[in-house]
Amino acid sequence: MSDEFYLSLAIDKAWNYQLLTYPNPAVGAVILDENGKILSICAHQKAGEAHAELNATKEALVAKDYRLKSLFDNAKDPNELYSLIIQNHQNLLKNSTYYVTLEPCAHQGKTPACANLLLAVGAKRVVIGSRDFGEHAKGGAKLLSDNGLEVVYGVCAKECDELLEPFLRWQSGNFTFFKIALTQNAVATGGVISNLASRTHTHQIRSLVDLMVVGGNTVRTDRPILDARLASDKSPNILIYSSKDKFDSQIPLFNVPNREVYISNSLEFAFKQRFVMVEGGENFLKNLDFRIDWILIYRSNEFKIGSSLSLNLKLKIIHRTTLDDGELLWCKRVN
Amino acid sequence: MSDEFYLSLAIDKAWNYQLLTYPNPAVGAVILDENGKILSICAHQKAGEAHAELNATKEALVAKDYRLKSLFDNAKDPNELYSLIIQNHQNLLKNSTYYVTLEPCAHQGKTPACANLLLAVGAKRVVIGSRDFGEHAKGGAKLLSDNGLEVVYGVCAKECDELLEPFLRWQSGNFTFFKIALTQNAVATGGVISNLASRTHTHQIRSLVDLMVVGGNTVRTDRPILDARLASDKSPNILIYSSKDKFDSQIPLFNVPNREVYISNSLEFAFKQRFVMVEGGENFLKNLDFRIDWILIYRSNEFKIGSSLSLNLKLKIIHRTTLDDGELLWCKRVN
Repeated sequence: MSDEFYLSLAIDKAWNYQLLTYPNPAVGAVILDENGKILSICAHQKAGEAHAELNATKEALVAKDYRLKSLFDNAKDPNELYSLIIQNHQNLLKNSTYYVTLEPCAHQGKTPACANLLLAVGAKRVVIGSRDFGEHAKGGAKLLSDNGLEVVYGVCAKECDELLEPFLRWQSGNFTFFKIALTQNAVATGGVISNLASRTHTHQIRSLVDLMVVGGNTVRTDRPILDARLASDKSPNILIYSSKDKFDSQIPLFNVPNREVYISNSLEFAFKQRFVMVEGGENFLKNLDFRIDWILIYRSNEFKIGSSLSLNLKLKIIHRTTLDDGELLWCKRVN
Repeated sequence: MSDEFYLSLAIDKAWNYQLLTYPNPAVGAVILDENGKILSICAHQKAGEAHAELNATKEALVAKDYRLKSLFDNAKDPNELYSLIIQNHQNLLKNSTYYVTLEPCAHQGKTPACANLLLAVGAKRVVIGSRDFGEHAKGGAKLLSDNGLEVVYGVCAKECDELLEPFLRWQSGNFTFFKIALTQNAVATGGVISNLASRTHTHQIRSLVDLMVVGGNTVRTDRPILDARLASDKSPNILIYSSKDKFDSQIPLFNVPNREVYISNSLEFAFKQRFVMVEGGENFLKNLDFRIDWILIYRSNEFKIGSSLSLNLKLKIIHRTTLDDGELLWCKRVN
């Protein structure tokens, strides 16, 4: 099978944690042993937790020697896991190949440098999707090739760059996405649209964003709470985008602990935040007169009688994630 | 990686040829060498051509020894390919593992028995999704286990059975599906909806069905040709489902060579055909008062101002196929 095939497995895995790794990038990794057998397909799942390469190395070693599982599972943090791997890899990954959607990092941050991990276990070859040009993390590929590994660049580069886009925008100051839940016939209203898996995914993201933007009419009409209860106690701060600043203080979103609520007819403040989620309905989507990087459409599996979205909008669908019997379309505007 | 992982690769591959193998089943196969490296992921593509196991065996041998490619590529039919493989496999697939979505056939039909092929190349293990209970082809797994192979049943059985459903229905007498093309907001009218890849896929299917059913109103309003020009010279026979039997004979569909056109207010004749495609719009889908096994929704990547489908219908989405910038949803009705 081609390098593209294996890197695609890493890309698909990484998408399962897209946005959930904030402020880190979504990264996937696949390891083949010296005979070309797949040992692991893993991703970075959450900031502060193990990088994709570390997760994949752990899984690969366990695939080779199951007795390592309990040892590694007891690691209290990524640093300890890293140390345990360095001490216990038994050369089981000698001459292995790593497929990584992003160049392995070369610096000790909250977690140790991944490039050194590849060197330590004796990997022979590394296939890299996107290069890392960040000031701190860059240099991993050079370190690896200087130490004799075969380094291949640019496989599935477009797909890996798309995967990385939110991270690059966070680094540049702001990534903003619009979220909407639709039936098969694009009805967005009239009760709960998306399934529990989709709503939980939304709440996971809500618990991570720096700010959530919602329209004034939505607040008045739906009287929402907009918390993250299905995933976390941490509710997002809210900016109500409205020209009027009077709202019924009994609307649940105003009564969530540890939350700031701003009311503004400007999005200037929003675009100064790094990670912003916009929730809205048809009018919001129709009148997107400000920059939206991505559109996330949670699509249910039913047609429902109601008012379908009526607008002209061409999308590029970057990725699809299955969420139980529904799906999430990760999109960009084309026109 | 698990057996489920590898069999899923075979399933996904087989779906690329779903319905296109009529009257044969869609089948996928994956081969791992004795070290667990993936050598090939292949499918049965068309009746009369090589079965999935034969295609996968060819690709696996080529992956092991590229010099075999030109030899195998010159085979004039599956029988010759089979013979060439038997003579030239050099034990390169000794102790290999086969993953097959359907039990390998045990009979010589238009092509030789796949079970014998697995024996000949020295496979060690075979993982099977669906059992084959057909009178002619059954017995492959028993032949293999009687000859010392490890045979594993029932992995991804539900997914493999779903993949096999059209074939089982063809064998029982009839498989009928409804096809519609929709925008992201479920607009079905007002010009071409789906992209060239989707239309070509539809035409491939049209060239294979025994009968195509279309509503009388659609014929009068759209004046369609309903041929298969993007894929084949063979246009489907048509049944116009209508209570009135007067139609303008200048409507293009009446003037396609080598086609029968029936006009009837009954679908009795249709359900006596083995493979039937129903094309229609909102009214057809809303008033499905007859048995439709599957619904195929070709979904474009744009929202378009127009009349969105308005109905209540819950779907189970069995599979999704990407077709360029659009996709095909393979669905069943749930309610």
